[in-house]
Amino acid sequence: MREPDGVRTGPASQQGMRRANLALVLDAIARAPRSRAEVAAETGLTRAAVSSLAERLIADGLVVEEGPTTSSGKVGRPGTALGLNPSGPGGLGAEIGVEHLGACVVDLRGEVRVRHRQEIRNRGREPAAVMLDLADLLRGAVAESGLRPAGLTLAVPGLVGASGGVLQRAANLGWEDVPLAAALRPALRAVGSPELAELPVEADNEANLGGLAELWLGGGPEHFLYVSAEAGVGSAIVVGGRLLRGARGYAGEFGHVPVRPDGPLCACGAHGCLEQYAGETAVLRAAGLADVRGDWVALLAERAGAGEQAVLAALAGAGSALGIAAAGAVNLLDPAEVVLGGGYARLEPWLLPAMRAELAARVTVRPWADERLRVSRLGRRGPLLGAAVGVVRAVLADPGRLGAA
Amino acid sequence: MREPDGVRTGPASQQGMRRANLALVLDAIARAPRSRAEVAAETGLTRAAVSSLAERLIADGLVVEEGPTTSSGKVGRPGTALGLNPSGPGGLGAEIGVEHLGACVVDLRGEVRVRHRQEIRNRGREPAAVMLDLADLLRGAVAESGLRPAGLTLAVPGLVGASGGVLQRAANLGWEDVPLAAALRPALRAVGSPELAELPVEADNEANLGGLAELWLGGGPEHFLYVSAEAGVGSAIVVGGRLLRGARGYAGEFGHVPVRPDGPLCACGAHGCLEQYAGETAVLRAAGLADVRGDWVALLAERAGAGEQAVLAALAGAGSALGIAAAGAVNLLDPAEVVLGGGYARLEPWLLPAMRAELAARVTVRPWADERLRVSRLGRRGPLLGAAVGVVRAVLADPGRLGAA
Repeated sequence: MREPDGVRTGPASQQGMRRANLALVLDAIARAPRSRAEVAAETGLTRAAVSSLAERLIADGLVVEEGPTTSSGKVGRPGTALGLNPSGPGGLGAEIGVEHLGACVVDLRGEVRVRHRQEIRNRGREPAAVMLDLADLLRGAVAESGLRPAGLTLAVPGLVGASGGVLQRAANLGWEDVPLAAALRPALRAVGSPELAELPVEADNEANLGGLAELWLGGGPEHFLYVSAEAGVGSAIVVGGRLLRGARGYAGEFGHVPVRPDGPLCACGAHGCLEQYAGETAVLRAAGLADVRGDWVALLAERAGAGEQAVLAALAGAGSALGIAAAGAVNLLDPAEVVLGGGYARLEPWLLPAMRAELAARVTVRPWADERLRVSRLGRRGPLLGAAVGVVRAVLADPGRLGAA
Repeated sequence: MREPDGVRTGPASQQGMRRANLALVLDAIARAPRSRAEVAAETGLTRAAVSSLAERLIADGLVVEEGPTTSSGKVGRPGTALGLNPSGPGGLGAEIGVEHLGACVVDLRGEVRVRHRQEIRNRGREPAAVMLDLADLLRGAVAESGLRPAGLTLAVPGLVGASGGVLQRAANLGWEDVPLAAALRPALRAVGSPELAELPVEADNEANLGGLAELWLGGGPEHFLYVSAEAGVGSAIVVGGRLLRGARGYAGEFGHVPVRPDGPLCACGAHGCLEQYAGETAVLRAAGLADVRGDWVALLAERAGAGEQAVLAALAGAGSALGIAAAGAVNLLDPAEVVLGGGYARLEPWLLPAMRAELAARVTVRPWADERLRVSRLGRRGPLLGAAVGVVRAVLADPGRLGAA
């Protein structure tokens, strides 16, 4: 019998062991459907223990019998393959962007069942009004998916830190100290989804969730810097396959790394922050498009594609500033890759050459290979996917939690 | 019986368990001397198992019987307290600096038994000649300590990375691709210490070892940035109580973070690196002391203490550049503290005000408290202490390794 680390005695230990073994069995099944005998062989648990644990996972709706396994040349009766239940509890992701809202439902296997993005200008709106629109989007997405979410994670363009879900500051929304779950729950009730209002709600910075999506779904290596740029410029630092959150949960504020210490004054009060060169406002101003509304990333891509000089120069300048700040981060962190995500992933042809030039010039002690800078194939979808997939990963990591509720 | 994580069968498992339990018992004794019964109560192992494991630790010279424990009001015969053997295997630390060599022997409890520092100008010398001097210093230190070292760790002012002990580049020494252990062993034999030449040798960057010393001995918190400045400017990043080494072992190159992207050309080929503002050469030049030899940190402290304007301005400039680069690192990493170590710790009165001003101005999204920047009380001794203590920590973490050899 597998024992969790540490010595415990009495009933607590029995429960803890069973809970750990539930996770062990579910993990084996999540990696690939397999028979009880195969699960026993893989985990080192007895066949009887696996059967008992599988019963529980089936009863909780996490696992289903998928039919006979392929015999694969082995002697004897084929077993019934156990697989993750595609109709089991899902993960509900939500996103509040400066110019959009998002909702996404994934199933236990992490497959996207429904994903909606609604373009809407949230800058300066009251949180309560935004939450009503978001609640409506979530209600529709969950109904369409047919799944019952096990939890809800909300991606926001600002600082959450270790605050327990308070959006402390989102400069581009104009929000400060918004208790996100407390603001979202009444909105969910108001749109007729009291059951969603009862879900556990977590919230995180969109760059953190985008970085986790890159790690889980985007092929991110063990160590990388994920740069998320759209209205603001943020980042997620992944070290040894884990998100680096820092002492107070504020790590990753890439947008406020000084690029030119005597540069323009930033909204944060400092001079020459990266956002003053690579943030939306700075780029649009440099491109002569300061009054643009709506999908400005798409517009920049279109104009740059058409060869408009001011736009090309603005993007080269932003790429250069991103590269200078990234060079500092690479010198500090030695990541295996720098991944550009968020809306800017779409601006790859114009941003990456300038970023590459700065990295090549400034990471010299150990040569920096060009291919170590790339864009995320998840692009803008990263944060919302990270939010939804994080919910089901938490279920898979501790399935005993569900049954105990 | 405590089982290590994971299921194993057969003899390997028995050996692995005994080895893990040896470490468990030794760890309990290392935290405070205690009787076999107390060790059993603390670890959850049986009294019989503890006795058998303690025999082995005593036979290996790691543990000694210290005499009867204080009865502390308990009923029954007092046990014999077991403690770490102060005459047991020691840790041997060595340091090659640009202007000095160092040797240090600590005992199993981490207490410094011998520490020698020799001022000597190593810049531009041949590695073989430096190694002979270092070997001589090490031989003397070990003889004086009366301990038998379990291993040797060498601190160097350059990049080692995951190279397996090759000093890839130390610009201030003028060394490249020096296989450190292979260079040191013949020197140890040449000075008549063949037994030291047989020790396992490890090597690491001096900033990494200084950061570890700060974590182990200097009261460093779980998350901090340790800045080590002397001839070069380096750093160690500690996250969750562990050193962040990066994908290839090159993390912490703080000296090459860009401070002013169009600034002076650095030896690394980039422009405006921190070292161009805060490294030895830059500070001495700014202070009008470009031709100084010997302990230039002491000289700067003396002249600054005397109120010499050019020196005060040079140090304020260096502090400001350190603060700009630290602000970027704090925005990225959210450490609980920034700790200034190395020789610059001695320049605290003149560097810290300028550093604090930049941090206050540039870490604004979450207020930065002045006291979160401090100097290391280990100062210059950090890297050498980290090297020596690391050796005994490795012994304590896996005492079975010794007996197996």
